[in-house]
Amino acid sequence: MDKDTQEEFETCGECANRLQYWVEQHKKYTVKGRCAEYIPALRYADPDTLGVCIIGYDGEVIKGGEADIVFTMQSISKVISFMTVCMARGISYALERVDVEPTGDPYNSIMRLELKKPARPFNPMINAGAITVASLLPGSTKEGKFAALLDTLEMLLGRRPIVDENVFVSEKETAHYNFALAHFLRAGGNLECEVEDAIDIYLRQCAIEVTVEDLAKIGLVLACDGFHPLTYKRLLPVELARLTKAVMLTCGMYNASGKFAAFVGAPSKSGVSGGIMTAVPPRRHKATPFHNGCGIGVYSPAIDEAGNSAAGVKLLQHISEEWELSVF
Amino acid sequence: MDKDTQEEFETCGECANRLQYWVEQHKKYTVKGRCAEYIPALRYADPDTLGVCIIGYDGEVIKGGEADIVFTMQSISKVISFMTVCMARGISYALERVDVEPTGDPYNSIMRLELKKPARPFNPMINAGAITVASLLPGSTKEGKFAALLDTLEMLLGRRPIVDENVFVSEKETAHYNFALAHFLRAGGNLECEVEDAIDIYLRQCAIEVTVEDLAKIGLVLACDGFHPLTYKRLLPVELARLTKAVMLTCGMYNASGKFAAFVGAPSKSGVSGGIMTAVPPRRHKATPFHNGCGIGVYSPAIDEAGNSAAGVKLLQHISEEWELSVF
Amino acid sequence: MDKDTQEEFETCGECANRLQYWVEQHKKYTVKGRCAEYIPALRYADPDTLGVCIIGYDGEVIKGGEADIVFTMQSISKVISFMTVCMARGISYALERVDVEPTGDPYNSIMRLELKKPARPFNPMINAGAITVASLLPGSTKEGKFAALLDTLEMLLGRRPIVDENVFVSEKETAHYNFALAHFLRAGGNLECEVEDAIDIYLRQCAIEVTVEDLAKIGLVLACDGFHPLTYKRLLPVELARLTKAVMLTCGMYNASGKFAAFVGAPSKSGVSGGIMTAVPPRRHKATPFHNGCGIGVYSPAIDEAGNSAAGVKLLQHISEEWELSVF
Amino acid sequence: MDKDTQEEFETCGECANRLQYWVEQHKKYTVKGRCAEYIPALRYADPDTLGVCIIGYDGEVIKGGEADIVFTMQSISKVISFMTVCMARGISYALERVDVEPTGDPYNSIMRLELKKPARPFNPMINAGAITVASLLPGSTKEGKFAALLDTLEMLLGRRPIVDENVFVSEKETAHYNFALAHFLRAGGNLECEVEDAIDIYLRQCAIEVTVEDLAKIGLVLACDGFHPLTYKRLLPVELARLTKAVMLTCGMYNASGKFAAFVGAPSKSGVSGGIMTAVPPRRHKATPFHNGCGIGVYSPAIDEAGNSAAGVKLLQHISEEWELSVF
Repeated sequence: MDKDTQEEFETCGECANRLQYWVEQHKKYTVKGRCAEYIPALRYADPDTLGVCIIGYDGEVIKGGEADIVFTMQSISKVISFMTVCMARGISYALERVDVEPTGDPYNSIMRLELKKPARPFNPMINAGAITVASLLPGSTKEGKFAALLDTLEMLLGRRPIVDENVFVSEKETAHYNFALAHFLRAGGNLECEVEDAIDIYLRQCAIEVTVEDLAKIGLVLACDGFHPLTYKRLLPVELARLTKAVMLTCGMYNASGKFAAFVGAPSKSGVSGGIMTAVPPRRHKATPFHNGCGIGVYSPAIDEAGNSAAGVKLLQHISEEWELSVF
Repeated sequence: MDKDTQEEFETCGECANRLQYWVEQHKKYTVKGRCAEYIPALRYADPDTLGVCIIGYDGEVIKGGEADIVFTMQSISKVISFMTVCMARGISYALERVDVEPTGDPYNSIMRLELKKPARPFNPMINAGAITVASLLPGSTKEGKFAALLDTLEMLLGRRPIVDENVFVSEKETAHYNFALAHFLRAGGNLECEVEDAIDIYLRQCAIEVTVEDLAKIGLVLACDGFHPLTYKRLLPVELARLTKAVMLTCGMYNASGKFAAFVGAPSKSGVSGGIMTAVPPRRHKATPFHNGCGIGVYSPAIDEAGNSAAGVKLLQHISEEWELSVF
Repeated sequence: MDKDTQEEFETCGECANRLQYWVEQHKKYTVKGRCAEYIPALRYADPDTLGVCIIGYDGEVIKGGEADIVFTMQSISKVISFMTVCMARGISYALERVDVEPTGDPYNSIMRLELKKPARPFNPMINAGAITVASLLPGSTKEGKFAALLDTLEMLLGRRPIVDENVFVSEKETAHYNFALAHFLRAGGNLECEVEDAIDIYLRQCAIEVTVEDLAKIGLVLACDGFHPLTYKRLLPVELARLTKAVMLTCGMYNASGKFAAFVGAPSKSGVSGGIMTAVPPRRHKATPFHNGCGIGVYSPAIDEAGNSAAGVKLLQHISEEWELSVF
Repeated sequence: MDKDTQEEFETCGECANRLQYWVEQHKKYTVKGRCAEYIPALRYADPDTLGVCIIGYDGEVIKGGEADIVFTMQSISKVISFMTVCMARGISYALERVDVEPTGDPYNSIMRLELKKPARPFNPMINAGAITVASLLPGSTKEGKFAALLDTLEMLLGRRPIVDENVFVSEKETAHYNFALAHFLRAGGNLECEVEDAIDIYLRQCAIEVTVEDLAKIGLVLACDGFHPLTYKRLLPVELARLTKAVMLTCGMYNASGKFAAFVGAPSKSGVSGGIMTAVPPRRHKATPFHNGCGIGVYSPAIDEAGNSAAGVKLLQHISEEWELSVF
């Protein structure tokens, strides 16, 4: 443990206090959003909830607010499926089928698939890209493909997460836009499995249950370029971890990704359940907490117009300003 | 001068040698691009040229290849006009008129202005945004507005750059897409001056002459969050420098910005003349050269399909991999 | 029988000769098209075939070329389903759910549904409109809805046509764009039945078997504003017959409808099987055959880029010029 | 004078009475629209005005309401410029540069020019097409080109109409969308003169002054396939007259052309000044007035959302239903 780290540990209690204070300060922003309406599990979440967990390079864990709630990953799972495909099939194989360019369009937009020939989805964080990625997962059955995704999560979390079957079933009943995308992709030859299976995998991954601590753990591994700083194991190739962070920064916060990059500046991915997973790479600023990098998980289910947790974004912006989390 | 810096200076000669070697290695990629065709000054540039300049935090300057060629800024000037407007009118004033979201569309695309009401351009790096920004420059005449932009450049470079009038005149003759954008913006009430003046300012800024060393200087100031490490002067507010780097990373390399973020990972802006300006913020990796941050200027006029210098991108990717320039 | 009609009958044999001659002359245009490729039944049709049937106001029937081939209606069935819905539910009910505006887009385009809110299909002749119309057919099951459509056809043809089950099954296997449209429509609340049922009805109607004589019969009833001139029965309300002819003229020939209106000028609907159904309203020109109106059926399976029978369009243009069939 | 005509003349007084009555009945629909706002001359028109003139094949003229008001042609002039270009350069020359397909888009839409390569405007009735057509007018100067258009009008009207210079100047000041279209077209190589000249010609033609009687005269010539039934002169080639009527029917009433075709059914062109020019080809129905064809001019400046005269459309629909004007 070098001197910097020691100082950090000493101040960790202070950091936790400040984090708790900021959470209380930022709860008011929950009123700027509304819970997603399209399925009961999201609609009936408590909109006033705000919880956060930060895990640092040396294993320090600080939490604030309601940090123990279990919620579904939703679009955050897109990061996991993308990494699983890249590891199993190779990055170049994946990128030939899904580009990594931001679009400015809503996440469920279909028109760009029609306008651009051939219809390669622009990035794996929009639904068209994520459904394509789901079909590329290794395995010859939908169960096998989904198991591959769970394997990645298990490797990252140290436990095999479970699926909220009620959420999965509810989402499937209202998944008409996703079915439209999947059929359009299938028509263009983009899917490597049947439409029904691709949707099944995609919606099942959306229904995986996590906590903010889980998100912080994954964020930390990404922050450390795929190396787990506590177990001293390499979980992801460096090249993939950086690619993933780049995609999160440019495309991870729906069509508010540009503003989030500008005002928070740390690679992040959000989901309509109100979760945000953030990876903070090491920075030069020695005086700030977590300067060796950290992972952050946030949860607050009231989401803004772009689909991002309203209070979660505000809280992350505040933490970023105070503790210099921006990569810029 | 701390110990790290000293070591760096000692190895600077070695760095210069390696840079020169890499330039020679990457010249072959010039054949992957073609010089921009639409005006004589660009069309008749020597497509085999490749030059680079890096300026580090402590003032070390290394160059490689044909590093003394004078070329026009073209789209790189969009960074300067955006910063000038933000400083003069305030960031929030600017962002109300131009968003900072990447689009995935070609730089001169007009359809998103029609589709989205009201027609606020998505970011200041596409032409629609840059023309809007030109109209927002402080000053009541086009001369005054352009002088404000030159003031910013003079502050950053320590000299007042000049305009290649031939280039300006040639561009104006073929600027029909830009005129279309400007009239469309004017129709929507987005311009704060007449169409003719906005185009005049915009095209004049495109015709400003620079060298790779100039671009490296500006990149360095951005890398250092607006602080000039050699003159010990703050030239840009921290907040603006970070905002600008975020916009460069998400939107700076035309519609290949996502891939550039993934594989180079340093905030950059390119122009169709073949120039690229890169700002490399300080990183944690102490073993690598320029870990305290640097600015890079590259020039190679043969551009790829997206509009970026073909060999320039390849060279930057190589330098980034070798010296860990990525912010991720 | 008035004098005009008598003269016409006398020349009917001559007309038949000329029609046969024109068919032979226009066979050469089959090489300008290609059979639709996406299902075997269409792909393996004989591309050199050209057949035509004209039925006049007084019952005279003339034929030319291979006029006895049985083929599937494909998009021509859209006319029948639209009329069935208008008769069962009322014209205003139908038009609230599907507009009657031409689009200029390909028949299977989806982007306009995304661009325009709420997503009412522009007309019943594009796939989005036809799938919506299929869902509006009277009946509470897909079998009931399809039977309603067959009832209309039986009333018009005097026999209950049959479905080519092989074609239906083949189409369903490759109907991904249609499924995408249907799911998108379902997401927007446009369908009055489940996606699977709407597609089932729509593809089954496409697979209804007809001959050119069948098409001519329906065309004749439309030409006569819904009155059957031979049985002296009113089969369709005047208002609906005129509405249908207007929609055929503005939207019936895919995105070549404008040019077909200009150079043929008679309300027509084509299908990718190579059929065209034309309704020629009575005209003033007493010297020309069929001036009291007629229906025309054409079949030639090699279709052009817009999806219309290549030789069929050329033949109709020639007949229109010779016998003044244009409504203009 | 044949028997039919004689009967018609006898009832002409009765027809005039009924027309006057219908005008009074339909004045109430003026409240469904609003005068165009963008220039003073249109904004300050009296929105309660409704006037109509019908001229029949045998020269009978009937009028109703305020039929003597002078107003500017606006988009109705697009018909004249299109015919002028077709006569001077040939129909095929014109159609290579402007298609005749309806679009479903607003008249000043630009995005289809970007989406479709090469950017041939879809039809001469949308602004993109009309500006292109203006540039194709015969003559080497803008004055020459405009004179050619006036020549056509003079031939049709028997007098040389004049331009309302105030309207022209006002329109030019607010013509930003048109300038955007023109520059975009120029960029794609579609214009045969400079942008400024094309706009000048186009806006000047919009400012030509006419009355409803003028519109009825032109409509009559079109109705009679280019033959002037009173002077016994052929003014337009048959082929061109029919093409023009087809384009009017499919594209003439902005993006309500489909509904107008369905419920009025006579080739028409409207302008934002509130004028509508209608050509009613001869029909079979001997019992109805004007069955040998007629031209109609309508004026009522309050326009609906699509840009068509609100009361004018309602009046034409009523006349069409009563006197069977539909071509279908």
